Amino acid sequence: MHLLQERIRKDGRNLGNGILKVDGFINHMVDPVLMDECGKEFGRLFGRLGARLILTAEISGIAPALMAGRSLNLPVVYARKHKPVTMPNKVYLTTAPSHTKGVQVELIVSPEYLPRDTPVLIIDDFLASGETILGLVRLVEAAGANLVGIGALIEKSFEGGRERLKSLNVPIETLVCITSMDDEKFEFAE
Amino acid sequence: MHLLQERIRKDGRNLGNGILKVDGFINHMVDPVLMDECGKEFGRLFGRLGARLILTAEISGIAPALMAGRSLNLPVVYARKHKPVTMPNKVYLTTAPSHTKGVQVELIVSPEYLPRDTPVLIIDDFLASGETILGLVRLVEAAGANLVGIGALIEKSFEGGRERLKSLNVPIETLVCITSMDDEKFEFAE
Repeated sequence: MHLLQERIRKDGRNLGNGILKVDGFINHMVDPVLMDECGKEFGRLFGRLGARLILTAEISGIAPALMAGRSLNLPVVYARKHKPVTMPNKVYLTTAPSHTKGVQVELIVSPEYLPRDTPVLIIDDFLASGETILGLVRLVEAAGANLVGIGALIEKSFEGGRERLKSLNVPIETLVCITSMDDEKFEFAE
Repeated sequence: MHLLQERIRKDGRNLGNGILKVDGFINHMVDPVLMDECGKEFGRLFGRLGARLILTAEISGIAPALMAGRSLNLPVVYARKHKPVTMPNKVYLTTAPSHTKGVQVELIVSPEYLPRDTPVLIIDDFLASGETILGLVRLVEAAGANLVGIGALIEKSFEGGRERLKSLNVPIETLVCITSMDDEKFEFAE
């Protein structure tokens, strides 16, 4: 997606160790108009899958997932990293390693919002190692729901996430693909 | 705002101790189309203030703030509760008591996204005791930015937040106002 790629080129920063700083428009300060355009693109890519619900991981997945939900007119469920007081005690919970935090984080969903047999589309900000998305997939499986597709704003293809998700046999769509992050630069797939 | 009030009447639950469970459409499972309508309403209410940036607190403020940002074409900054690795070490930080969590939470903003003299609109999900919003106000003041307005989806007027914010002398707008939460019910201001 040209608009997002140009924004990464302009405002993204390579912090080294494969960490791409995009917090000027995705993670900390968000450009809602850009995110809305990304949501519409997800709408075009996934509109025919019959999803009934979008699942994402807080916090950085929320903006793209919400705008995809707006475009597809679907509810968006955040897997929470901390259990809020309003959540019942019986939950679906898994852990996933956070590349940027260097620790395991919990991903928690209340069963009332992830019903059995629901066709679920997963949307996140990054597809890098695929670990967070695999955590979301485990929640879908624990709930007996049906994964129908996976989308991310930015793929870092050199981290191998797409390979790890291949056996799930669902469409995987990313809006921008970065193929290398050496020497403080980054290169995009054409 | 009629649409939001009806949704609270239908799907909101009074958990006691003044806690209103709205996680079926705002906090955990989000209805992006309802949030977009709320965002447009904030756009109508605040369009003339000249805000250049919206500030909110993660996580529950993100959906209404993003949709307000979409409507007003403004960037949205989340005050983070945990400092991410991509954030520099010099930050604006305050703490605020969380009513639902029973602990103090940190609110952290990177100075690069809250520039001095910027007219800032604060948007959050609830205006209850006003403590979280006062925390956001302290961040605006620490940055030397200018608060121009405060908006929330749902006001719980019996918790006194509006009184606490009055001396700030900025417009305070809420889309729905709950005046009491006794006996497992809740009553709305007309």
